[in-house]
Order: sequence, then C-alpha cells, then structure tokens
Amino acid sequence: MKIAVDAMGGDYAPKEIVAGVEQARDRYPEVEFNLYGQLDQVKPLLQNEDRITLIQADEVIAMGDEPVRAIRRKKQSSIVLAAQDVRDGKADAFFSAGNTGAILAAGLLIIGRIKGIDRPGLTTVLPVLNQPNQDSFLMLDVGANADTKPFNLYQYAIMGKYYAETVMGVKNPRIGLLNNGTEADKGDLVHKAAHDALASIEDINFIGNVESRELLNGAADVVVSDGFSGNAVLKSTEGTALTMLKLIKSSIMDGGLSAKLGAAMLKSTFGKIQSQMDYSKHGGAVLIGVKAPVVKTHGSTKAPTVANTIGQIKTMLENHVVADVVTYFDEHSDEMIAAKEQLKQK
Amino acid sequence: MKIAVDAMGGDYAPKEIVAGVEQARDRYPEVEFNLYGQLDQVKPLLQNEDRITLIQADEVIAMGDEPVRAIRRKKQSSIVLAAQDVRDGKADAFFSAGNTGAILAAGLLIIGRIKGIDRPGLTTVLPVLNQPNQDSFLMLDVGANADTKPFNLYQYAIMGKYYAETVMGVKNPRIGLLNNGTEADKGDLVHKAAHDALASIEDINFIGNVESRELLNGAADVVVSDGFSGNAVLKSTEGTALTMLKLIKSSIMDGGLSAKLGAAMLKSTFGKIQSQMDYSKHGGAVLIGVKAPVVKTHGSTKAPTVANTIGQIKTMLENHVVADVVTYFDEHSDEMIAAKEQLKQK
Repeated sequence: MKIAVDAMGGDYAPKEIVAGVEQARDRYPEVEFNLYGQLDQVKPLLQNEDRITLIQADEVIAMGDEPVRAIRRKKQSSIVLAAQDVRDGKADAFFSAGNTGAILAAGLLIIGRIKGIDRPGLTTVLPVLNQPNQDSFLMLDVGANADTKPFNLYQYAIMGKYYAETVMGVKNPRIGLLNNGTEADKGDLVHKAAHDALASIEDINFIGNVESRELLNGAADVVVSDGFSGNAVLKSTEGTALTMLKLIKSSIMDGGLSAKLGAAMLKSTFGKIQSQMDYSKHGGAVLIGVKAPVVKTHGSTKAPTVANTIGQIKTMLENHVVADVVTYFDEHSDEMIAAKEQLKQK
Repeated sequence: MKIAVDAMGGDYAPKEIVAGVEQARDRYPEVEFNLYGQLDQVKPLLQNEDRITLIQADEVIAMGDEPVRAIRRKKQSSIVLAAQDVRDGKADAFFSAGNTGAILAAGLLIIGRIKGIDRPGLTTVLPVLNQPNQDSFLMLDVGANADTKPFNLYQYAIMGKYYAETVMGVKNPRIGLLNNGTEADKGDLVHKAAHDALASIEDINFIGNVESRELLNGAADVVVSDGFSGNAVLKSTEGTALTMLKLIKSSIMDGGLSAKLGAAMLKSTFGKIQSQMDYSKHGGAVLIGVKAPVVKTHGSTKAPTVANTIGQIKTMLENHVVADVVTYFDEHSDEMIAAKEQLKQK
C-alpha cells in the first residue's frame, strides 16, 4: 500500500511531517510513501529515502488561503498533486496536517464522493474517561458541512457504523444522535426528523438521542451530529480541557511551596491524566464518504502523531473500510433513494 | 420589591429552596417574597415568616412532565400560580429550580413576551478563566428555542447588551456570534445572515464571530448563539469540566501514597479552582424578552445558590433591565420591522 503525504502542511512542516513519515516507515514495513513538497526543503531533512518517493510541488497552500479557490488555482501545490495521485490510483490514501478546508475540498473535488453518498462527513475520535470498558468514541460530522439535512445524518450513521466496526474494532456499535435532550421528540426540525430516520435503519444499533454533557462518559460508540453543532461541541470540549489544565498549572504556580511540592508528588498522576485526554494517539480526522481515505490532523501536529495517523490509515486500508462503504451504498441504492425522497420535505 | 418563588421545584425542594429564601430575606432587607407550594410541607421548614407570604399550591409540576401540557392542565401548581401573580402585578419576578420547559412555558404563555420581541432567549453566565480583567461572560440563547432564525439572533444581541450592561456592569460589552470559525463568511446560512445583521446594528459593539474553543478564555462579554448549538456548547463545557475533575479525583485515589499526600498539599489550590469553575455564584439562567424577570437554576440547586439568585433578581429589578429592553424595542419598532423583513428570506 502507498500513502500520499503532504510534507508542507502544518505549523511544523516540513520537519515534523518528514520525521513522522520516517518513524512510520520504520514501524510499518509494508507501507510505501509518496511525499509531496518543496524538495529543496524536504530532501535535507530525510535520513534515507527507503520506500519514500519524493515529488516536487512548486506551490504551497497556506493556512489562510480560501480553500476552494486554492485547490482550483494552485495546481502545483502539494495538496492538489497528492490528491490527484490518489484519484489516479497512484496512491491509496491521502494525509495532510495543512489547511483543513483545502484538504476537504481536495477530497470532495479531486478524489470524489462515493456513489450514493450525498455529503461526506468529517470524523474524529475522542476519549472516554472514567469507564472500564470504553476508551474512545467516534463523532461525525465535526465540520465538513455547516448546513445539514436529516438525510445527511442518516448517511453519517451508516458510515460511522462501518468505521467503528472496521477501524476501531467495536462490534455492533451503539449509535447516538447528538441532540439537546434524550427524549425522542427533542431538538429542532432537522434533528426530530433525523431521530425517526435513524430509528428506521435496520442495520444499525441506534440508541436514540445523546447529550453533549455525556459524551466523555461514553454515552455512545458513534455520535452522529450535524457539522455545525458537532464542530462547536468538539471545540468546546478541547477548549474546556485545555483551559482547565492551564488553570491548574497557574494555580499551582501561584500556590506557594506546599502547592509546588504537592504537584511534584502528583507528577506521574498528572502525566496519566494528560495521556488519557490526548486523543491524537487515535490518529487524525477522516473525511468519510470519499473514494479513498482522506485524513487530516491538527496544524500543531508533530512527528509521533504523524506516525500514529499513518498507522490508522494502514488499518483503514487493510480492513477496506472504503470498499465496504461503497458496497453498502451500492447494494442499498433503492433504500437511499426512498429515504432521501421521504426526508426531502424536512 | 416582591419575588415569587416556586418552593416545590428542584431535587432538594422544598427544604433547600425555603432555606435559601430565608438566607436571602436576611441578606436583603428590601426584598419581600411570595412562596408557592404545598404548605403542609413548606411551613414546618420555615424559621419565621417575616416578609414571606405563603401561598398554597395544590399541584406540583414534576421534572418529567411535558411542559406546555403541564402549564395548561395543572392550574393549581406552584409554577402556574407564581407566574400568574407576576403577570397580574402581585409580584415583580419569578424564580424556580423546577422543570425547565415548564418554567419557560410559564414565562412565555403566562407572563408573556415584550412587544416587538419575536423569541425570548435563555441566558446563562459562564466563568472566564486565566484572565486578569474578565471573570465571566453571558451566553444566549442556551436552549429556549431549538429552531433559530437570523432575526432571533439579531434580537438576542440587543437583549444581551442590556443584560451585560445593567446586571453584570460591563460597559459597552463586546458581543460575539458563536460560529464555527472566526472569519466573517463562516457558518451555515443562518449564521452567515446573522453575522451581517449583527454587524449592521449601530448600538452594539459587535466583534464578529467567536469559536466555542475560546469562550472560557474570554473571547467576548456576550456570546450570541442559536439555542441548539448554544445548549450543546453549554452542556459540553459542563460535561468536560465535571468529567475532568472526576478523572483527577479517581487518578489521585489510584495513585498511591505519594499522590494522596500531593493532593492533600494541593487542597486549597483545588478549592480555588473549583470555586472559579462554579458559575452558580453568578445566579441562575434568565429568560430574557418576557415582561418580568423569569429565572431558573439547576435542579440540583441548594440554599446558597437560591440566595445568590435572589440577589441577581434584585439587581435586575433595581436596574430595571426589563423596562430598558421594553423601551428600546418600543423606540426601535420601525427598525425591527425592517430588519425582520430583510432577514425573512434567510
């Protein structure tokens, strides 16, 4: 298998991306890489070129570039060249830590949607805390689409089931709909309609509505959300956790000798907590519903996260999650047409 | 001034509600109370009846009751009787820790909307951490309305400004729109239209879009949100903070002697952190846009929060926030009609 990696995306590119690719290359002997970037910068960083093909990209899509315009105009950028090679079968998956909008646009416009899927969704894996039998859950969509229809949520549920089963190894995953109350009649018009539509899918284990308050407690294995509030919940979860850790640190600093001593004695405990909160170990966010794995990580990504994400992509390829989704939507095309028609008014 | 208090609402009612009212009565000599409930339960709990008028309510609206139906059918409930007295001018404000939906329904259907306001919004005050010059911010709507239109967000911004100035004492508050990116063109159709509408209001200090990740860092003084994602963000902020505190506690318990000693040395530091996170000291959630203050607190409310919330209501009444909002919408009725017309298509 061959993975197309954008060497130029992210705050620490190309250095940390190149280092992460080499870590992954040494960890996974069966994986080959295409590495796209400005080779005068990339090449000196490489220890050796085993199983790594370097491909010159004259242009770079910056973090602030308008995504769709950048994809259309910067034809020689690392993102566009990598996505084109995936589309043309020269690589099996695409990874970047760069401009999120541009990565999504490259996935949608260059690699393309799976037949029968209206809107691909962006997934992320978040930690579950304080539970003996669950250490993470999948959430989608966390921001690929701002305007979401009930039919999109219906399709996210099916794609989420495949991802949780195939990549995360969760059997018959519990699927919940992110809503503002657990009762079946809660929510706005979109979520009311989506609740009933999800309840009608025979192939999934739908457990009803879940609230954002309970996500980190393991309310579901797969949380289906509209991209607008899914994105808001993801960011408020991250923001609250980071702000609290900062508050704890500054309170200890202001707390005199006793507090500093106490913190020193708790060092390994705090280390364990931080490692449980760190969801980058689960890899990156996946654009699911396109014809090949398209995976992005935070702009602040460093080498270990790059290597973990390559491992996640390897699992996706080995377990052919994309092929399974393609087959499902192919075999259920009549059902999809009927569901879409029925949900059209909503 | 007289405040109508539902003695029967909340997990610890009537005991903690009655105790909180007595604390507030002793703290605020100018405040009188009407206390509605089942008097055979309420009366034995009272130390003395100074400035407290007891009113028998034969029925109780339970936490699980369907709100609108409960308001219509349980005419002798403490919530309905209290709201009716506010409507009839026998009391100036309404407080309950009971069924949220029923409190909102009583505010809307019994006390009634201010003329010119399409949808009242539910506000809450949340803490700002790690900042020297800001200790809290106001967010609205956090769940009064699931289906929100740009015109509703436009009106929330104006009401939020009045609340922040009048009750929280923030001069010329910075008003942000909760959105999934800070750029002006971010969001779904509703938030794109709302951004432009808010930018057009001359009387407010609109600072543009804010992301949920930055709220606890003080991104704005007033965060305007649609009720669906505002509710989701509020609950994920609460949930993340609670789950992290639980994780810290259990990690310390599992961490051996050194961790337990360390925690003991950090006790006062942890106490300060918990007090900074505790936003019940700012009082309850206010339904703003109705003809009198309608305030609710968490079901888990105990006496100190009841007393703080009475203090918050007293400030609202003294600083006539409702009257100011009434005047504004009266004087700007032409502007409102024009804005509504213009935003209709969106």
